[in-house]
Amino acid sequence: IIKPWKALQETITIAWQYACSEPRNVVFSAKVGLALVIISVLMFMNIPNKAIDKYAIWGIMTVILVFEFSIGATLNKGFNRGLGTLFAGGLAMGVAELSLMTEKLEVAFIISSIFIAGFCSTVMKLYPKMKHYEYGFRVFLLTYCFILVSGYKKREFLKTAVNRFLLILIGAAVSLLVNICIYPIWAGEDLHNLVVKNFSAVANALEGCIDEYLQYCEYDRITSKYPGNQGLLYEGCMSAVRSTSREETLEGFALWEPPHGRYKKFNYPWRNYVKLSGALRHCAFVVLALGGCIDSEIQAPPECRQVFSSELKRVSSEGAKVLRELAEKIDKMEKLKAGDGILLEVCKAAEELQNKIDRKSYLLINSDSCLIKKPEDLDNSENLFDIQQNDNKILRIKSFSETCLDLRSVLLSKSSNEISTTKIVESLPTEGVLSKSTSNEQILWSSYSLTFEDVHNDKESKTYGSASALSLATFTSLLIEFVFRLQYLVEVFQELSEAACFKESIVDLKAETKSMLSGQD
Amino acid sequence: IIKPWKALQETITIAWQYACSEPRNVVFSAKVGLALVIISVLMFMNIPNKAIDKYAIWGIMTVILVFEFSIGATLNKGFNRGLGTLFAGGLAMGVAELSLMTEKLEVAFIISSIFIAGFCSTVMKLYPKMKHYEYGFRVFLLTYCFILVSGYKKREFLKTAVNRFLLILIGAAVSLLVNICIYPIWAGEDLHNLVVKNFSAVANALEGCIDEYLQYCEYDRITSKYPGNQGLLYEGCMSAVRSTSREETLEGFALWEPPHGRYKKFNYPWRNYVKLSGALRHCAFVVLALGGCIDSEIQAPPECRQVFSSELKRVSSEGAKVLRELAEKIDKMEKLKAGDGILLEVCKAAEELQNKIDRKSYLLINSDSCLIKKPEDLDNSENLFDIQQNDNKILRIKSFSETCLDLRSVLLSKSSNEISTTKIVESLPTEGVLSKSTSNEQILWSSYSLTFEDVHNDKESKTYGSASALSLATFTSLLIEFVFRLQYLVEVFQELSEAACFKESIVDLKAETKSMLSGQD
Repeated sequence: IIKPWKALQETITIAWQYACSEPRNVVFSAKVGLALVIISVLMFMNIPNKAIDKYAIWGIMTVILVFEFSIGATLNKGFNRGLGTLFAGGLAMGVAELSLMTEKLEVAFIISSIFIAGFCSTVMKLYPKMKHYEYGFRVFLLTYCFILVSGYKKREFLKTAVNRFLLILIGAAVSLLVNICIYPIWAGEDLHNLVVKNFSAVANALEGCIDEYLQYCEYDRITSKYPGNQGLLYEGCMSAVRSTSREETLEGFALWEPPHGRYKKFNYPWRNYVKLSGALRHCAFVVLALGGCIDSEIQAPPECRQVFSSELKRVSSEGAKVLRELAEKIDKMEKLKAGDGILLEVCKAAEELQNKIDRKSYLLINSDSCLIKKPEDLDNSENLFDIQQNDNKILRIKSFSETCLDLRSVLLSKSSNEISTTKIVESLPTEGVLSKSTSNEQILWSSYSLTFEDVHNDKESKTYGSASALSLATFTSLLIEFVFRLQYLVEVFQELSEAACFKESIVDLKAETKSMLSGQD
Repeated sequence: IIKPWKALQETITIAWQYACSEPRNVVFSAKVGLALVIISVLMFMNIPNKAIDKYAIWGIMTVILVFEFSIGATLNKGFNRGLGTLFAGGLAMGVAELSLMTEKLEVAFIISSIFIAGFCSTVMKLYPKMKHYEYGFRVFLLTYCFILVSGYKKREFLKTAVNRFLLILIGAAVSLLVNICIYPIWAGEDLHNLVVKNFSAVANALEGCIDEYLQYCEYDRITSKYPGNQGLLYEGCMSAVRSTSREETLEGFALWEPPHGRYKKFNYPWRNYVKLSGALRHCAFVVLALGGCIDSEIQAPPECRQVFSSELKRVSSEGAKVLRELAEKIDKMEKLKAGDGILLEVCKAAEELQNKIDRKSYLLINSDSCLIKKPEDLDNSENLFDIQQNDNKILRIKSFSETCLDLRSVLLSKSSNEISTTKIVESLPTEGVLSKSTSNEQILWSSYSLTFEDVHNDKESKTYGSASALSLATFTSLLIEFVFRLQYLVEVFQELSEAACFKESIVDLKAETKSMLSGQD
């Protein structure tokens, strides 16, 4: 007795959590129920017209099939259904008239017309450009068959067609009224919010990435393991990258919606939202690549990273700030302040990072020197090379053994990194595969490295030394690339803000008034 | 008279091209037509049972709604429809019995039960885990309402339910028979082919990327424009990245399909295909990042690129070879040869590239030296730094002016690059935006650079010099990262080949026999 009771309790808990997390779904479900009740009541009323009695099911069916989550989707489906029915009705009546003339061949004529209708509508439905009207073609075919088969039996082609159409109209009207009048859910609003959400997701991922890259130094030597929370950060960034199809769907529905709420303009530029999201995705790709650097096999020594720590952090925080500011602007539907340098700070930061790289560029080629000794003030590039040369000579033997050791551990811990990376792949048994997969290629590569090392021992370890330092170069230049891509993002945002007639920033107006006043003083 | 005739001609041409490019769609459409004919004939036959007469439409409807492109989808939908009807039938009958007991409140009882059914099934339908059964819930609701409303009017709950279920069974049976017996289209086969196609798309994109990167040098100085055909290469790689949702859909359907053709195993590991594709996507991200380097604002001087030309080409061609070999193996369903070093060559090539980078690492820091003088044999690193130092001193003044010029042109041509980059965004008016968008941020950045330059003129130009050389470092280390990721790909392939019981490679068997024979000698 206790078991099912417990299961019930658990189910209720899950259901409650679900309801709390997605209140819109619950409201929508109640709306569906209400629409069904209304249409059922209409059908139960004893209207003298017998047709409604007979074809009641079509009204109910329309409500069930047309009632979609967002208003745009409902309008779209209702339109498809109406148009499909209308076309099919007209065509079926014509064919029915013709079939009466064929006399004995009547049934054969009807059946072959059904074949042709089925063939043509399916071919057209599968044509890529017609994808949006898929439902319309389905309804067309259904109605066509229904009128011909049902109508033939009862010899009431016209009556069947008209009644079906009327009941569909009633059903669609009930759906639309309930859907629009009670707690409307607009696809456009969803698209707007999705874009805003994506902006902050990318901003978080960017900051997280840099933090992790610098934090990793500390963890690295002690546990030689990843902190492993980048999965969460990725998730946001990946979902921003992946949301393409969702955005396109929402856009398709939003275009159907009449002006509403904050989106008062006719022909609201929903396409620009999708374009903006595309530009954001362009930035997100770089963030993913930055994440890829964290997961990659060849890693820069922590000491080298620390040298650039403050600059990296500044670029990332400024970049994230720009993204968050844009997100806020979109959310509030404000324009950027005219002549405002939203990118000023991040560009400065990038420039500084670039300068630092330039000054410390020797670190990016050979990591040996930075493993032990960190030259502090080497703006004078004449000194720079001398010191490095000395370092090289002195530390060569020591650093060789170190790099070799590092290399080995990297190779062994590789597959675990790889698995944490491929959150993308999902559905991976995390640890099981791991222990098993030290197979073929794994061993192959390391054995290959070994033989290679025997021959060119000296060259080999140097190679990995430089490779590991280059990884830092990759990371920093990707970050700078990100800053460049931000510019395009801002451009696209301005395009959107123009097209959608965003209001002028309030702060901006205040500032203008102030400056005018101070000008008068 | 000529105009519509021409339009007709054009339409026919388009239709014919479409039919030729997608013959499967045409065959499928004919199958739909045939299934409809069969069910219509069944309905037109004067079977004594009047019920079939009355509910004929349900059979036709089932065919139209259940007949899907792939067999897996048809089975899935048929199952959903059957189960939904069965559940709804059972529940509706119970409620109908109960409603008879409520006497006067009968209608109210029925209507409130409809509300509850509508509410509950919609809430459950929207629950993420239930997404696959969405259609089932819809059918459930439809049947439930239909039986209660229709049945109430005629007081024939049981008859309505049974007839509906019977006709749905007939419709589903016709659909399945026609779909399986005539030119079956299997979702599993499609998934298999999609994965193979993605492999070669990524291979082509990789090779194309490197070629473009090296070719670009030649175009650069003359026209300072991109050849601009990378769009096509990207397309393939992007479609591989984007195919996630398509793969998941196909996997969902493939799991429903019985063993067939080459996929004879029960519980065929379709999941592993998706996983393999995920690993491939992991590689494709790197290829996209390589493409990003081509489009980025900061570019390495052509002379520097040419230094690494042969190594870059070798890595890319070996990498592409591995991908193509894997594609072939998947296509033929063969295992990798045991102990075979499929990665051997590409690893060697990567190692060589790494060595070259190491030897010529000075090129990656300061591009000045390579613009005019290219030291040829500098394996001796003691020499290296001296020469570079001299170069630096001598060429400093000359290179400054050069780099500054470059910088300016880069900044001005930036927006055009960006736009070619964002093929991803699509729907961009190519030239229109361009000329307009030299606005705010654009000017801001360059003016900022200018002021910055005035103060630190020396530092600034050096910065861009080093940045442009670092971009080559980024490119090469991304390529090496790609090689590392290949390893994981091969692992996942082997997992799949084990799980799916691929056959041993034929060449392998021959080779083994040979080696055994030679061993006997």
